[in-house]
Amino acid sequence: MPTTLGQLARLVGGALWGDASLELTGAATLGLARVGEITLADHPDRDRELAASPAAAVIATPDVECSGKPAIIVKDVHAAFAAAVSHFRPPRTSVRVGVSPQAVVSPTATIAADVDIYPGAFIGDHCDIGAGSTIHAGVRLMADCVVGAGVTLFPNVVLYENTRIGDRAIIHAGAVIGAYGFGYKTVDGRHQLSAQLGHVEIGKEVEVGAGATIDRGTYGPTVIGEGTKIDNLVMIAHNCRLGRHNLICSQVGIAGSTTTGDYVIMAGQVGVRDHVHIGDRAVLGSKAGVSNDVEAGAEMLGAPAAPIRQAKLQMAALAKLPEMRRQFRVLQRQFEELRGEPLRDVPTGDSSQEKAA
Amino acid sequence: MPTTLGQLARLVGGALWGDASLELTGAATLGLARVGEITLADHPDRDRELAASPAAAVIATPDVECSGKPAIIVKDVHAAFAAAVSHFRPPRTSVRVGVSPQAVVSPTATIAADVDIYPGAFIGDHCDIGAGSTIHAGVRLMADCVVGAGVTLFPNVVLYENTRIGDRAIIHAGAVIGAYGFGYKTVDGRHQLSAQLGHVEIGKEVEVGAGATIDRGTYGPTVIGEGTKIDNLVMIAHNCRLGRHNLICSQVGIAGSTTTGDYVIMAGQVGVRDHVHIGDRAVLGSKAGVSNDVEAGAEMLGAPAAPIRQAKLQMAALAKLPEMRRQFRVLQRQFEELRGEPLRDVPTGDSSQEKAA
Amino acid sequence: MPTTLGQLARLVGGALWGDASLELTGAATLGLARVGEITLADHPDRDRELAASPAAAVIATPDVECSGKPAIIVKDVHAAFAAAVSHFRPPRTSVRVGVSPQAVVSPTATIAADVDIYPGAFIGDHCDIGAGSTIHAGVRLMADCVVGAGVTLFPNVVLYENTRIGDRAIIHAGAVIGAYGFGYKTVDGRHQLSAQLGHVEIGKEVEVGAGATIDRGTYGPTVIGEGTKIDNLVMIAHNCRLGRHNLICSQVGIAGSTTTGDYVIMAGQVGVRDHVHIGDRAVLGSKAGVSNDVEAGAEMLGAPAAPIRQAKLQMAALAKLPEMRRQFRVLQRQFEELRGEPLRDVPTGDSSQEKAA
Repeated sequence: MPTTLGQLARLVGGALWGDASLELTGAATLGLARVGEITLADHPDRDRELAASPAAAVIATPDVECSGKPAIIVKDVHAAFAAAVSHFRPPRTSVRVGVSPQAVVSPTATIAADVDIYPGAFIGDHCDIGAGSTIHAGVRLMADCVVGAGVTLFPNVVLYENTRIGDRAIIHAGAVIGAYGFGYKTVDGRHQLSAQLGHVEIGKEVEVGAGATIDRGTYGPTVIGEGTKIDNLVMIAHNCRLGRHNLICSQVGIAGSTTTGDYVIMAGQVGVRDHVHIGDRAVLGSKAGVSNDVEAGAEMLGAPAAPIRQAKLQMAALAKLPEMRRQFRVLQRQFEELRGEPLRDVPTGDSSQEKAA
Repeated sequence: MPTTLGQLARLVGGALWGDASLELTGAATLGLARVGEITLADHPDRDRELAASPAAAVIATPDVECSGKPAIIVKDVHAAFAAAVSHFRPPRTSVRVGVSPQAVVSPTATIAADVDIYPGAFIGDHCDIGAGSTIHAGVRLMADCVVGAGVTLFPNVVLYENTRIGDRAIIHAGAVIGAYGFGYKTVDGRHQLSAQLGHVEIGKEVEVGAGATIDRGTYGPTVIGEGTKIDNLVMIAHNCRLGRHNLICSQVGIAGSTTTGDYVIMAGQVGVRDHVHIGDRAVLGSKAGVSNDVEAGAEMLGAPAAPIRQAKLQMAALAKLPEMRRQFRVLQRQFEELRGEPLRDVPTGDSSQEKAA
Repeated sequence: MPTTLGQLARLVGGALWGDASLELTGAATLGLARVGEITLADHPDRDRELAASPAAAVIATPDVECSGKPAIIVKDVHAAFAAAVSHFRPPRTSVRVGVSPQAVVSPTATIAADVDIYPGAFIGDHCDIGAGSTIHAGVRLMADCVVGAGVTLFPNVVLYENTRIGDRAIIHAGAVIGAYGFGYKTVDGRHQLSAQLGHVEIGKEVEVGAGATIDRGTYGPTVIGEGTKIDNLVMIAHNCRLGRHNLICSQVGIAGSTTTGDYVIMAGQVGVRDHVHIGDRAVLGSKAGVSNDVEAGAEMLGAPAAPIRQAKLQMAALAKLPEMRRQFRVLQRQFEELRGEPLRDVPTGDSSQEKAA
């Protein structure tokens, strides 16, 4: 069922620019949008791509040159476009299923009102699930877990004993919370597992990505602060304490007992060693290898990580190093020629005294 | 039950070299093969290892010096050896199980002929499973998924809503397809999740490794092109569009909206930033960190990635940098000595003007 | 129920230093311990933190200055503190559940005495589970697996066909053992999967972390030696043979057919290429990229990896490279000034002959 541009402009609360009666059949992003569909342009640098698109119309910010295409002009183009997409392709409204008789729920578990537990989920002894939470198929809660209200646990999430999940948290499929910490003491040539008496506490509105793992503390909790978002396949080791509203991108690894402040950002594949502290609002660039404390607000890059300006200077200098090496040999030769004798390469001890960082 | 070398030569279609009546008891690779077994040698550089092996015979390519061992000579040594291994240790023929009554299949799902659904699998509303597909134990299909014909979903695979899987695809255990993209807008200090209206489309004959994760698009599809192979623990973010016949090795991470051409190869632990394009047949070496577009056919290495020849020159120059640094100080001192005064280290402004890459 | 310091000293077998009648209400680590609780100090460098702690008492090693706090002095402070924590917060004693009628166990499987199989587990045909093992909810054993005695398989572990697990091994949630190796032969533009006739053998007392993946061998086994410990999200490819008592930290990737000796240590995010050997007791530093054999006892760092002393010298020299570059240009200019003519930058051929590592 087509929708007119005018109807859509009213729906998304935008200013109409063009023929209100233009009929639209769908909404898709630039590069995917076809004839008859509306697309979006969120930045002036999209101008050229927009002009080349067969899309019939566009939802755009005021600063975009719409190349004569009929347009709906809004401030928050992503909110408006999401509304348009949802209009053409309404997202499935989730059906409440209640507690499935095909789920396994311990008789000692406490399940609040309006909880959905899908078939094949397993809720261990003395667990407590808050109101309005959704526990998908194949989720496993070992004993004594406490799940807040409005939480979503996607399929096959595993919570080990005594895990605590704050209200409105979202844990994606396959994430594992509370496995043993990787701590060993080697006795007579055998690695003996350290104590595993702790657990994991996940704050309110935390999101944990698919396949991510967060290990339990040795004696007490591993903590993820309120509002922190963790992407897929991230590893957070035992005893870590992450602050609030961190953004931890995919495949980051944080070793044991490391702590972070609030609003820390770690880009993809960062590694942070154990027992360091990353200060408030620090930013660790992708693939950074961090083995020391990082000050609040610092931006770090490289492995080993350095302040970003310094790291970029090093990378630029390294890119030019082969040429510099060649020029250096030219200079050496010409110096020898000028002086009429070889450079006296007397042992200075410098090399052996060189501090290895 | 032993098999003679002659029987095996006929079975694998190779040329017999040695006593046809020699009895063999098994087949194992070099280093593992024991007395009485047949082994394989796929390259002349295996000669020494082969000579030292207790194996009774060998399946080899024509260019291998078989050191007097009885041999079966073939062109495709791996196909022949696979046949030999299968002869001695026949792989389990999978028994058709049909749709297990212990699986949970929505009454609104459509299941084609000859589909196996194992106990404990969960097939959500309005899913569609093509003919001859195998859905192993613990697989979870949320609503509206479409799975082609001849597909294998290994145990505990999770498909979020509306995932599409092409014919003959293989998805390994624990892979998660269609989880939310990691996109946030920070409002009043809180990270608000972006729209999650898209889905994932997996092409025909794609393989996805164990524990790999592929996130849904924001408004439309994340796409994996036909014939592309993805190894274990790979992360492919929202809105990515991978071309056909890519080989993406283990633990690679590709950030949001990045696209690839056909026949791209990424070695292990590569990281690619968001919104770039990797051209046809480009090769990214292991641990490369790619933050710009890569041209078709380019081979890149390092973090930040550079063309491989340049990257290797840089790595070689870096390896010699400590020695060059020492020589540089010798030169500085001798220059000062020659001139009879210290180097005038006048501020040149160079350092501050240095472009940081 | 509070416990006196005297009671606790007797419980942990330590020397009492202070008022035996002091009542304690709990045990927590430094930084978390509150008024009335006992904490631990395992090293003299904890002195300051201990002095600032509100904890009522401390379990400490003899060399710690306890700042006047009542103390229990022991040699093995972690064993003693674990006993204290367990005293105040007794860990849940696992209840034997036997073979749940809600598990799916093939009639051809062999289950020894005292095995626990939780609801929703799946045990395939001809599997064999040893005495005293625990198979948690959602574990999937495909056909012909052999699990030793005293093994723990945490929820949602997947074992592909023919996997062998040694006695007392612990496999954490979501780990996948035995998926297909990532080996392809490209024929007519299509990647054809190599033979997948092998399996995985896990030695006694091995531990495998959450979400880790170990692929099957091509023709024979991928092997993990006795006592080796593998952390979360590690990838071990087909045909690898790891020695005994290795420690493989989180997110390490080891490519196909690579072997290790005994007591090898790999820190987080290390990558090792295929077909190399890492000798006994070698140590690979975090994020190392290893593409050659490593000698026994060597300590390697960097990507590409170098012996640690050399790698640290390189890193130190790189950190100073931008400044050296500036000084080099000063020297060049002053040399030209001294000589009264520009450096003759004659083509030397050096650059093109430079060996690229």
